[in-house]
Amino acid sequence: MSEEITQRIEQLIRSDEEVGAQLYAEVAEDLEPDQVALLLESLPREERLECWEQVPAEQRVDVLVDMRAEARIALVRELDTQSLDQLISDLDAETLIELGESLPDDVVDIALARMDERQRAHYERSAQFDENAIGRYVDHDLLILPQNSRVRDAERLLRREVPEFTTHLWLVDRTGRYAGAVLTTRLFGQPDHRPLTELLDEEIEPLAAQRSLKEANEAFEHAEVSALPVVDDSGLLLGRMSVRLAFELLHEQYEAQLMASAGLDEEEDLFAPVLRSSRRRATWLGINLLTAFLASWAIGLFEGTLQQVVALAVLMPVVASMGGIAGSQTLTLIIRGLALGQITTASVMPLLRKELSVGGLNGVLWAIVIGIVASWWFSSPAIGLVIALAIVVNIAAAALSGVLIPVLLHKLKIDPALSGSVILTTVTDVVGFVVFLGLGSLFLL
Amino acid sequence: MSEEITQRIEQLIRSDEEVGAQLYAEVAEDLEPDQVALLLESLPREERLECWEQVPAEQRVDVLVDMRAEARIALVRELDTQSLDQLISDLDAETLIELGESLPDDVVDIALARMDERQRAHYERSAQFDENAIGRYVDHDLLILPQNSRVRDAERLLRREVPEFTTHLWLVDRTGRYAGAVLTTRLFGQPDHRPLTELLDEEIEPLAAQRSLKEANEAFEHAEVSALPVVDDSGLLLGRMSVRLAFELLHEQYEAQLMASAGLDEEEDLFAPVLRSSRRRATWLGINLLTAFLASWAIGLFEGTLQQVVALAVLMPVVASMGGIAGSQTLTLIIRGLALGQITTASVMPLLRKELSVGGLNGVLWAIVIGIVASWWFSSPAIGLVIALAIVVNIAAAALSGVLIPVLLHKLKIDPALSGSVILTTVTDVVGFVVFLGLGSLFLL
Repeated sequence: MSEEITQRIEQLIRSDEEVGAQLYAEVAEDLEPDQVALLLESLPREERLECWEQVPAEQRVDVLVDMRAEARIALVRELDTQSLDQLISDLDAETLIELGESLPDDVVDIALARMDERQRAHYERSAQFDENAIGRYVDHDLLILPQNSRVRDAERLLRREVPEFTTHLWLVDRTGRYAGAVLTTRLFGQPDHRPLTELLDEEIEPLAAQRSLKEANEAFEHAEVSALPVVDDSGLLLGRMSVRLAFELLHEQYEAQLMASAGLDEEEDLFAPVLRSSRRRATWLGINLLTAFLASWAIGLFEGTLQQVVALAVLMPVVASMGGIAGSQTLTLIIRGLALGQITTASVMPLLRKELSVGGLNGVLWAIVIGIVASWWFSSPAIGLVIALAIVVNIAAAALSGVLIPVLLHKLKIDPALSGSVILTTVTDVVGFVVFLGLGSLFLL
Repeated sequence: MSEEITQRIEQLIRSDEEVGAQLYAEVAEDLEPDQVALLLESLPREERLECWEQVPAEQRVDVLVDMRAEARIALVRELDTQSLDQLISDLDAETLIELGESLPDDVVDIALARMDERQRAHYERSAQFDENAIGRYVDHDLLILPQNSRVRDAERLLRREVPEFTTHLWLVDRTGRYAGAVLTTRLFGQPDHRPLTELLDEEIEPLAAQRSLKEANEAFEHAEVSALPVVDDSGLLLGRMSVRLAFELLHEQYEAQLMASAGLDEEEDLFAPVLRSSRRRATWLGINLLTAFLASWAIGLFEGTLQQVVALAVLMPVVASMGGIAGSQTLTLIIRGLALGQITTASVMPLLRKELSVGGLNGVLWAIVIGIVASWWFSSPAIGLVIALAIVVNIAAAALSGVLIPVLLHKLKIDPALSGSVILTTVTDVVGFVVFLGLGSLFLL
């Protein structure tokens, strides 16, 4: 969003209600539906409805589609019957699919009843696919020709109204199976009777409807087109999927990864009700608590030592946190590598060698620094030696875990972005405390 | 990348050299340049050169362009003069711009000398823009017409060879300033003499060359086209920018964010030399060490207490880590909100209220659980009470910091994804230790 619009929205939100409505009217014409959606999400829930009422009726459906599911559901729940009725008065199949889960079932039924037969058929076909399948997001508005058509047929079709964002014509065989794509630009200067099959765009490969959205995304990254055809498992052309969707998916995918690393849901609404947010986050805190008690238990093994050498208790966080940070650096690198597909079974050993070397170097470097500081702080070279050794061991353990934990989780089909970091810090905490306090018991008592 | 190709690449990497070369030859024809690039990045450095030599000569430039800068520079450095010479024998301006920084200066000069004058002029114009500006990534291969052209002129132009991925014609005025875009599909069925200005595609807005790539990205998300025109500050049409680039940028942006959270560089090569990796990561470890010593210092204030009540030392990690996790949940939510533009000055107060409420609820819940466990573990209700209170205070502090730290960093134009988490855990560590040990000194001595 441009800086200027952001500023005006800030102004809008800061102002009181009446001024707000006026300001909204001023910016509204410059705002795309997704910007209005963002504006709504950035408002506390009680103010959303007020702002929503300022959104022009013809823009409302698009705004809803662009909102995150959780915020959308919350908003829809607050609309009265009349507003809902207006909203669904003229939906096409694609929009109803996107809004479907946020709407009460009876409202979906009414919307379906109002559709013409063709749109309803489209809806029912798309609804068969699950949320993660390409087939669910098909756009049915496209130009289709029989595969034995000629340039003149294509030109005749194109002289009529063409759907938005049309760049290709799609060819099908007699049974409706996908038979190729023709870039409309290639038609110019071609003899009228030339078969379209001689002009096929070889760059275009159809997407399989039952495959995952992730694959659609990869296809778009290679194709440099604004839409790709979608076929079912018998090869029937179902429609096209647009590049805009691929962008949205990419955003969602990364967002989900970012949020997962803190045990959050990607759809999480900034202003979700306190109770719901608390419940969701409690799980993650609970898991973490178990691992924290594990660390405490490790420390508890050395109660006697700690009583005699309090300096060890003071320095414990240094050992644990250096291990945690070193480990999370390796972990992040490996998680990215796994996500990109850079890491294979064969590359694990060389990676381990490299990360252990990096860990070894940094371990020794920081062990010396920390050892000197600790010796000076507690006027005890023995303490300096103990912590220096513990740092070297813990950073090496961190490098090892940073490589092995995500690779193992990946093999077990568990997303390392979600749980990798908890497991890693548990390892570095426990190893760090046991080695540090163990060495302390040996050398300092 | 498809599962099948990944598997074959794994096989390839696992096998010995000779078999490897053979297998490579088998998969190579199915691989896109970016997949080969990934394959090279997934190999330890010593094996990369061998694999590179198997890449067909005509694919090599594309593969290099698709590699991450650090891995590419390392590979180029190992090529002999002859290979380099071959590589640059037929570069266009766009490719030389992309490879430029990875090539030795004298090689760039040779490549420039071999270009025709038009390409060289393109190169020089693009090179004026910095790495983050749209102008640097302009594709000069496009169809341009004077704005007073008519449908017949457009059709005449289109009958000749058209550049790849052409969907639009671009209109300019007499001085070369951008005057509009015409979707070629709209030309069908139009009278020959109709002015093109009557057929303009209103969805297309030109990109300003000096603006940042981030803005180009946002524009593509709205435009649903495969290319957008780029103009300089006087409105001259410089060329077009393709949607593929927008995808690459989005990937890089998110990757950078992920890597930054662990103090890593987005270009970091999986198999970077040990010394370079160590040096880079050392900085982050050093910063973290300072904050860890800060936590130690806080604990050191209570040496006397710890000596008398060792249980406090045992339980310290629980207090610190619950605060850290609760805080990082809030932090992640706010960082995402800032990145999306959902958070404005006006929404900070309601967000604080909400996060404090969530923190309060979870604080009390887990304080009770932890209090009971600690009372039972150390057979001391007083210890249970002390840790319960400390947990409530620290989780509240975590909620507060989780909102305020990223918002403040954002205001100071510092990326909260980079430093937010270090600052946050420092706060939760210090607050947690001081409150816990402070309460311990009050109630347990």
